[in-house]
Amino acid sequence: MALLKNDRFLRALLRQPVDVTPVWMMRQAGRYLPEYRQTRSAAGDFMAVCTNPELACEVTLQPLERYPLDAAILFSDILTIPDAMGLGLYFEAGEGPRFRKPVRTEADIAGLQVIDPASDLPYVLDAVSTIRRELNGRVPLIGFSGSPWTLATYMIEGGSSRDFARSKTMLYDQPQLLHQLLEKLAESVIAYLNAQIDAGAQAVQIFDTWGGALSHAAYQEFSLNYMTRIVAGLTKHSEGREVPVILFTKGGGQWLEAIADSGCHAVGLDWTTHIGHARQRIGAKVALQGNMDPATLRASPERIRQEVAGILKQFGSGEGHIFNLGHGITPDISPEKAGIFIDAVHSYSVNYHKKT
Amino acid sequence: MALLKNDRFLRALLRQPVDVTPVWMMRQAGRYLPEYRQTRSAAGDFMAVCTNPELACEVTLQPLERYPLDAAILFSDILTIPDAMGLGLYFEAGEGPRFRKPVRTEADIAGLQVIDPASDLPYVLDAVSTIRRELNGRVPLIGFSGSPWTLATYMIEGGSSRDFARSKTMLYDQPQLLHQLLEKLAESVIAYLNAQIDAGAQAVQIFDTWGGALSHAAYQEFSLNYMTRIVAGLTKHSEGREVPVILFTKGGGQWLEAIADSGCHAVGLDWTTHIGHARQRIGAKVALQGNMDPATLRASPERIRQEVAGILKQFGSGEGHIFNLGHGITPDISPEKAGIFIDAVHSYSVNYHKKT
Repeated sequence: MALLKNDRFLRALLRQPVDVTPVWMMRQAGRYLPEYRQTRSAAGDFMAVCTNPELACEVTLQPLERYPLDAAILFSDILTIPDAMGLGLYFEAGEGPRFRKPVRTEADIAGLQVIDPASDLPYVLDAVSTIRRELNGRVPLIGFSGSPWTLATYMIEGGSSRDFARSKTMLYDQPQLLHQLLEKLAESVIAYLNAQIDAGAQAVQIFDTWGGALSHAAYQEFSLNYMTRIVAGLTKHSEGREVPVILFTKGGGQWLEAIADSGCHAVGLDWTTHIGHARQRIGAKVALQGNMDPATLRASPERIRQEVAGILKQFGSGEGHIFNLGHGITPDISPEKAGIFIDAVHSYSVNYHKKT
Repeated sequence: MALLKNDRFLRALLRQPVDVTPVWMMRQAGRYLPEYRQTRSAAGDFMAVCTNPELACEVTLQPLERYPLDAAILFSDILTIPDAMGLGLYFEAGEGPRFRKPVRTEADIAGLQVIDPASDLPYVLDAVSTIRRELNGRVPLIGFSGSPWTLATYMIEGGSSRDFARSKTMLYDQPQLLHQLLEKLAESVIAYLNAQIDAGAQAVQIFDTWGGALSHAAYQEFSLNYMTRIVAGLTKHSEGREVPVILFTKGGGQWLEAIADSGCHAVGLDWTTHIGHARQRIGAKVALQGNMDPATLRASPERIRQEVAGILKQFGSGEGHIFNLGHGITPDISPEKAGIFIDAVHSYSVNYHKKT
């Protein structure tokens, strides 16, 4: 493998000194970029890009051609695991993801197999190794997975949901059934992320997009519990480096202490959390990733810079901050605004790091 | 006015001793009740019930006929204020509320008038006095309003929203314009709630349903700031009693200290917050209302009782707890389950209050 030329992101995850605060954006390879829309349109649809390693590599690298980002993230979908389990993922225009065969009964869950990434999701692993080759050491590559609870909600609801009616009915009325599903998902996520690490992922992020819909107690039992097991089951070192794990529970700001106790290296924050308060609460234990409201990117350049400066100031001097948005960048944002954001992070953060 | 026979709810709001923990449910007069569906269907639609004081009174009292609830809440909609401002509220089947004339420009906002409740919303005030007469002192009546920020999101978006794209663009890009709108709304909410108090409301709740979509800093500036002004502008005493104010920001669990500093008497909690932790953080200053996940009502009676017992135990002994759901009861819940919930609160909470 090529020598890593920019390791700011990996260093910050381990709370080691960096020259400037590293930055990447969730969904940085996405519909706000005209070159992405072109690739996707030529390929046919979103899944056609995901399942073709060359195209997945192409779109993964697109934002790096435009911006001085400090990490690349595998272009894929969180629902590849349920799809590999046979649920039949498809996308309905304007409706988001759907499954042909949702999981609702004891028999449905008993019939699910823990995935074998090499045979079930070879296209993802091929994409990881292709991207690593093409990155050629420019920046590290992040692998990722959805959390078991988040995957379970899509599998039970059959798609996106506002109130998670079926998933929560199972949670409260048949908790043991939900636990059976979550156990199979946790085993699958461990195998999937370890296969991504073997193929070349240098850090991994677990997206717990819907953990914030749970009560305090249910979050611990049905989401964090399984993410903690996953962290324990992951490959710790690869290519002579530690492989850091980022846990991101959207809406998890009240549970940061518990999340930081999972064994992860970094906690992702959405924009509702004051990152300075988060640092006081847990910053001695883990790095923090986040957390500008993606809606800020609709404002003027001056306002975007002001918001970046504010978050850097909240975090303060010292190590352990990876700048990001508090959620994915949305399709309506102009690429110029994303560039202003990224440049502002690098230029304003110099003063918060000791000269090395 | 008739003497109040059950004042547990008002006493708990002021953290005074009670025999058992008082309980009510957000949306307790609603579609889960067959008698409500019947009244609504006979009236034509939801707004036909809201705008007819006799019908609004009838449905307000329906849950009290079934359950030993400790408070009644005015049957109305949070969007009456924008409707009175001329935006043209209507409901599209399965789509939620909509406005014919959304507010998007400086001219739109300049054209809005602070409402005069007596002339603009007489049906609400008539409903309040009718309900008070019919309640005949059984339990106290809660008046309510949406928060300025929450009302503004509907007014700017033209209806419900997932990501508040237009509202947040205004917030980040034209904050002074949003402030002009919020000021008119805050003045209107003060006038509206004071008119409800004059007409007989014995406590009021401000629903900040979408405050949780904001960043830490934006929440303070664009939502809490205006709710604090409202609390300061409300009538403090009526009929020889203090009129308590409850602030409920859904998704506001990270900001409880700030909310408690608003001058309110009680803070509403959604189910993501551990009510025992909330009590440690702010319970010496205000009462707490909440906070069972409404989805729990889809579980078995045993599981519902277990969840009630758990929340009572989290809060612990002593005063200042009003039991409620963490959000409105949903239409799919069977009325029997609601009864099990309410009975469990009363029977299990006896041991947490000193014998009086």
